[in-house]
Amino acid sequence: MNEKAWIEYLKRFLYEKEPVLKSKNEDCAVINFGKKYLLFATDALVEDVHFKLSYTSFFEIGVKLAVANLSDIAATGGEPKWALLTIGSPAPIEKNWIDHFMNGLVSTLENYEAFLIGGDTVKSKTLFFNLAIVGETKNPVLRRGAIPGDLIFVSRPLGQSSAFLRLIKNKNLKGIPKSVKNAHLLPEPEVILGKELSKRKLPTSMIDISDGLLIDLWRICQENHVGAELDVKKIPVGKEATLKEALTGGEDYALLFTIPSQKLNPLKRLEKKLKRNFFCIGKIIEEKRFFFKENDKIKEAEILGFDHFE
Amino acid sequence: MNEKAWIEYLKRFLYEKEPVLKSKNEDCAVINFGKKYLLFATDALVEDVHFKLSYTSFFEIGVKLAVANLSDIAATGGEPKWALLTIGSPAPIEKNWIDHFMNGLVSTLENYEAFLIGGDTVKSKTLFFNLAIVGETKNPVLRRGAIPGDLIFVSRPLGQSSAFLRLIKNKNLKGIPKSVKNAHLLPEPEVILGKELSKRKLPTSMIDISDGLLIDLWRICQENHVGAELDVKKIPVGKEATLKEALTGGEDYALLFTIPSQKLNPLKRLEKKLKRNFFCIGKIIEEKRFFFKENDKIKEAEILGFDHFE
Repeated sequence: MNEKAWIEYLKRFLYEKEPVLKSKNEDCAVINFGKKYLLFATDALVEDVHFKLSYTSFFEIGVKLAVANLSDIAATGGEPKWALLTIGSPAPIEKNWIDHFMNGLVSTLENYEAFLIGGDTVKSKTLFFNLAIVGETKNPVLRRGAIPGDLIFVSRPLGQSSAFLRLIKNKNLKGIPKSVKNAHLLPEPEVILGKELSKRKLPTSMIDISDGLLIDLWRICQENHVGAELDVKKIPVGKEATLKEALTGGEDYALLFTIPSQKLNPLKRLEKKLKRNFFCIGKIIEEKRFFFKENDKIKEAEILGFDHFE
Repeated sequence: MNEKAWIEYLKRFLYEKEPVLKSKNEDCAVINFGKKYLLFATDALVEDVHFKLSYTSFFEIGVKLAVANLSDIAATGGEPKWALLTIGSPAPIEKNWIDHFMNGLVSTLENYEAFLIGGDTVKSKTLFFNLAIVGETKNPVLRRGAIPGDLIFVSRPLGQSSAFLRLIKNKNLKGIPKSVKNAHLLPEPEVILGKELSKRKLPTSMIDISDGLLIDLWRICQENHVGAELDVKKIPVGKEATLKEALTGGEDYALLFTIPSQKLNPLKRLEKKLKRNFFCIGKIIEEKRFFFKENDKIKEAEILGFDHFE
């Protein structure tokens, strides 16, 4: 099974009845818990799959593990709260690396008011780290909800994380611009933005871009039985990244959200408040296909993205 | 660091302030969540460390992963609710094994009214499974609370899981008695008992025996700055197991709890209701040491147990 087939397969085992609002096709599981919704997500990093020790410090691995999980909570408009860590390590855990890893993990969690409250440690030939995170929100923003006419936004320039992986093949770390390095090694989760969007009830749907803009937008479209038309010139391409990397590169951890056009004004007010600019890259359309608009020409797009098993 | 040193080390990174009632030295993290307490635990199984494919079916691996996590919830007197699965697999996930694994996992969770609501899948040279579980309870039973004079109980005979590992070295599966096989390959978590004990507020402290009776009892003693005197003859040794296996073998998933002697009668009523017998194996003493009583002789015991890194 490739990842798509696996996600499809897994669905039959997932419980999605009251009080579970959402478990399938979502960044977090969303559970109705009285006055609040509980959010629950997990993400793992494996050596030589998600990071290489040749160019990633243990501090950065800790940061990235936190970010991958925080980003899932952000994508649902939640506040991250509590996390549990599992470490699988081939050798006894040694101070020379664990201090750095733990500092990266815990400081990143705490930056977003989330806290580590437990974990498990196991022997494993392959070094891996798993984090499970609990968050909460009064107003979960789901992938479901986008309708034709909604505007599609991304929260920041894309592709730099992917550009890093291209550049590191031929260059050493010092030769790579800092913003590109940071995009891959010290990414920032959009927790604050996710919370603000949820509080203001602006998005009709939202997802974090972890597998690539096109594939993650496609997930939104599939969930809502709609398509999208993207204005190629408006796609924000990060410094040093190519358009292809912006469209299909993974691990950007930007938010992608849709809003009805009548909510443009409150969104502008939010931009002002946060001193940021978001990028309107196109709109949701009825036809269940993807189109690129460029210089008044429209052509159909292919969906390309990262598959964990391909 | 060995496991003990690691647990000690990890503590400095764990958050334990309101609303987190307990994160250190506990089976679950316990969070005050309004009218209820939220319980949060995680456990991983790794190939060739926690299971060998030569004698463990994928169904059994699924069961065991569920049990290890359910047992943590049981040890706190909680109701298991929701679980997230991470699979790390060297090859694409194939139907020929994943069906069995998922059925073992999901059916065991559902036996205790817990449900799978999400997960992650990653490539990894080493096959591993991680589960994170959320539970809840109105009355969490902690490790903390035992005082001198309290009676020490275990919920069922011990050592069979460990006996299996001894027997499988020289025998094939067919030559091993079914109860011994099941103790290791299809263990049962004490979820129902844990809930009943919590509801009746009988235990002053509780833990599940996952690393061995002595080491887990020692954890209770350390947490409460007390010691224990064990009546060797009263330790329930499972069929085919040795006394040493009952004392130090891991993965029994029995509950160990302490109760004040004046609660013996309500405990007897619970035994009647559940049609079970629990085993009083000794008592908590003031002196922070371990003693074995045998034929009126008392000698000091050594603490032996399974260390994941030794």
